[in-house]
This record gives sequence, C-alpha cells and structure tokens, in this order.
Amino acid sequence: MPTRRGYINITSQVEECLGESGINEGLALVNAMHITASVFINDDESGLHNDFDIWLETLAPHEPVSQYRHNVGEDNADGHLKRQMMGREVVVAVTEGKLDFGPWEQIFYGEFDGGRRKRVLVKIIGE
Amino acid sequence: MPTRRGYINITSQVEECLGESGINEGLALVNAMHITASVFINDDESGLHNDFDIWLETLAPHEPVSQYRHNVGEDNADGHLKRQMMGREVVVAVTEGKLDFGPWEQIFYGEFDGGRRKRVLVKIIGE
Amino acid sequence: MPTRRGYINITSQVEECLGESGINEGLALVNAMHITASVFINDDESGLHNDFDIWLETLAPHEPVSQYRHNVGEDNADGHLKRQMMGREVVVAVTEGKLDFGPWEQIFYGEFDGGRRKRVLVKIIGE
Repeated sequence: MPTRRGYINITSQVEECLGESGINEGLALVNAMHITASVFINDDESGLHNDFDIWLETLAPHEPVSQYRHNVGEDNADGHLKRQMMGREVVVAVTEGKLDFGPWEQIFYGEFDGGRRKRVLVKIIGE
Repeated sequence: MPTRRGYINITSQVEECLGESGINEGLALVNAMHITASVFINDDESGLHNDFDIWLETLAPHEPVSQYRHNVGEDNADGHLKRQMMGREVVVAVTEGKLDFGPWEQIFYGEFDGGRRKRVLVKIIGE
Repeated sequence: MPTRRGYINITSQVEECLGESGINEGLALVNAMHITASVFINDDESGLHNDFDIWLETLAPHEPVSQYRHNVGEDNADGHLKRQMMGREVVVAVTEGKLDFGPWEQIFYGEFDGGRRKRVLVKIIGE
C-alpha cells in the first residue's frame, strides 16, 4: 500500500479462497499477519472509511512520534494502537458454501503503517 | 429495539442454539449481522452497561451528526465506530455440551442504531 | 499478577497446548476467562506495552473511581472498558501442527484488575 493508512475491501478474495476450499459448512478465519494492520467487517462506504481514519487519528495520533516509547528507530507505535481498536481478525460463518453475511457486511484490510507488501491469512475449517 | 442504544443479554438464546445443535466439543461463533451493532462478552450489571454507554458516547459521539462524512442521508456513523470498539463477534469454546465460560462471562448484543428489528448469527461447529 | 495492570507473553503456553492436542490443521481459540482482562496479539516489545498502558489509561482512566456507576463496592469499571478495547480473545490458524503466525505475532494476556490468580482458556479444534 503506497500510503500510510488505507482500507481495502478483500471480500472477493476471501470468497475465492472459500470456493477453492470446497467447504460448505464451517468457519472462515481471516486475519492480518501484520501487527500494525486490522481485518474487520463494516460498510463499504468511502465516507465512513474517512470517518474511521479521522477518528483513529484522534484517539491514537501518529504525531508527535516521540510521545511513544515504542518509537525508538520506529515511528509506527500509533499503528499498533489503531490495530487494537479495529481488531486483528474476523471469524465468519460458512453456510451452504457461502460467507454467511448480514445485508451490508464486507471484509476490509485496514493498514496503519503502509508502504510495504502486506499479507492476510484465510483459514477455513468444516466440511 | 425501541431506543437508539441498548445492551441485551443473549446468553440463554445461544445456549438454546447449542442444545439444539447436539454438539459437545467445538466452537460457537456468535456475531451481529448488522454493522452498527456488537456482540461482546462482559458482566451482566446495569451500572456497567451505563458506564459503557457514556464511555462510547464520549469517544465516538453521536452529535453533531454533521461531523461525519458517512452521515449523508444517514445519522448513524457513530454507531459504526462504537461497534468497532465493542467488537462484531465472540467465539466461545464448547466443552461437554456447554458454553465454556469463566465465572462472570455473559454474551450481550449491543445496539448502537436501534429502532429496527435486529438479528444475531450463531454458528456452532464440532462433534 | 501482583500489579493492577500487566502484559504477559503466553505464546509458549499456547504452543504447549497445541503440541498436546496433536492437531495439525484447525483453529485455536485463546480467551481470557475474566472480564477485566484481554487476550490479544501484538509485538513483544516492552516500550510498546508501556504505550498501550498509558493509552488505555488516557481513554478509560481508573481514577476517579467514582465516575463509574459500576464502582459500587468495586473499583474496576475501567478494567471492563480497557478489556473491550484490547479484546477478549484471539483465534489463530493451526497449519502443519504450528500456530500460523505472521513474523511478529505473539499472544499476550493483558490484565486490567490484577492481584488475583487468572486463567486463560485454550480450545483447539481440527484434525
């Protein structure tokens, strides 16, 4: 991700993994593999993502970076805090071979210390 | 739910689902199907629920609704933020046919944009 | 835990449970059994844990204890709030008999109302 922070809809990639798994009934775990990032479920609406971003920056500001003891040779302590607010993972029910979602649920990767290649883990169990 | 916000103990409904499933060892996923609501585990104590409510309103206030870009024809952006703080889902161990709880754990549905009929998903896997 | 708040790396204990389970592919649930405590995944870095502690105390302060309605004969309402920010549980993929972690992921028990003996539940399902 080229910017420090961003929110990417990864629902279709998770659906692809589910299709490949052949699982009809079970649970799908989707988690960030990085500790300054989140996987969360919410609305696919850019205004809301902007609201998330401003809100996270208010409650866990990036600047001044010197306010955080973690920032010795780093500047991403705020990313670790933001990740805790938004969560590491989601677990989604799989029913009849589909992600069993409410009407507006979509899965997002939230990045709080961007600029590097990032990975998500998807693990599906069931039958 | 008739009010905008509220906290409902849904533990007995989840236990009913578990009983019907016949599963003895496994995991139970319980999640809100709405993106301005939470399922979480905490204490069944009304003073604490009042504390949650005031705290959430302090950190993610409803008013002024115009402070949020999501609120174009909507007024529930704060509900999306509050939901992230309290979480979408819980995963509970099932052991010997029971929810495997610590002494005070109870499951709640937290509503942050009420007035409509709401649904919870319960998915139990195991044997 | 002798202090009110603290952060303990429990990754090796979870790995022991996984070894004993003999499970190769599945999911591991790790949750706090206490409602003023969290299980979360982040970096094993003491400066960051100090940052978490100060940040949680800023957003959900312990004092004055009288600001919380829960604190009638209790003084731990803030612990219930902090636990919601940091989360109750993590679900970790198990792949080839190992916790399937990103490069820096470690599992922590976060205590927000210490002084008593505390317990964590580990439930692993799969085959």
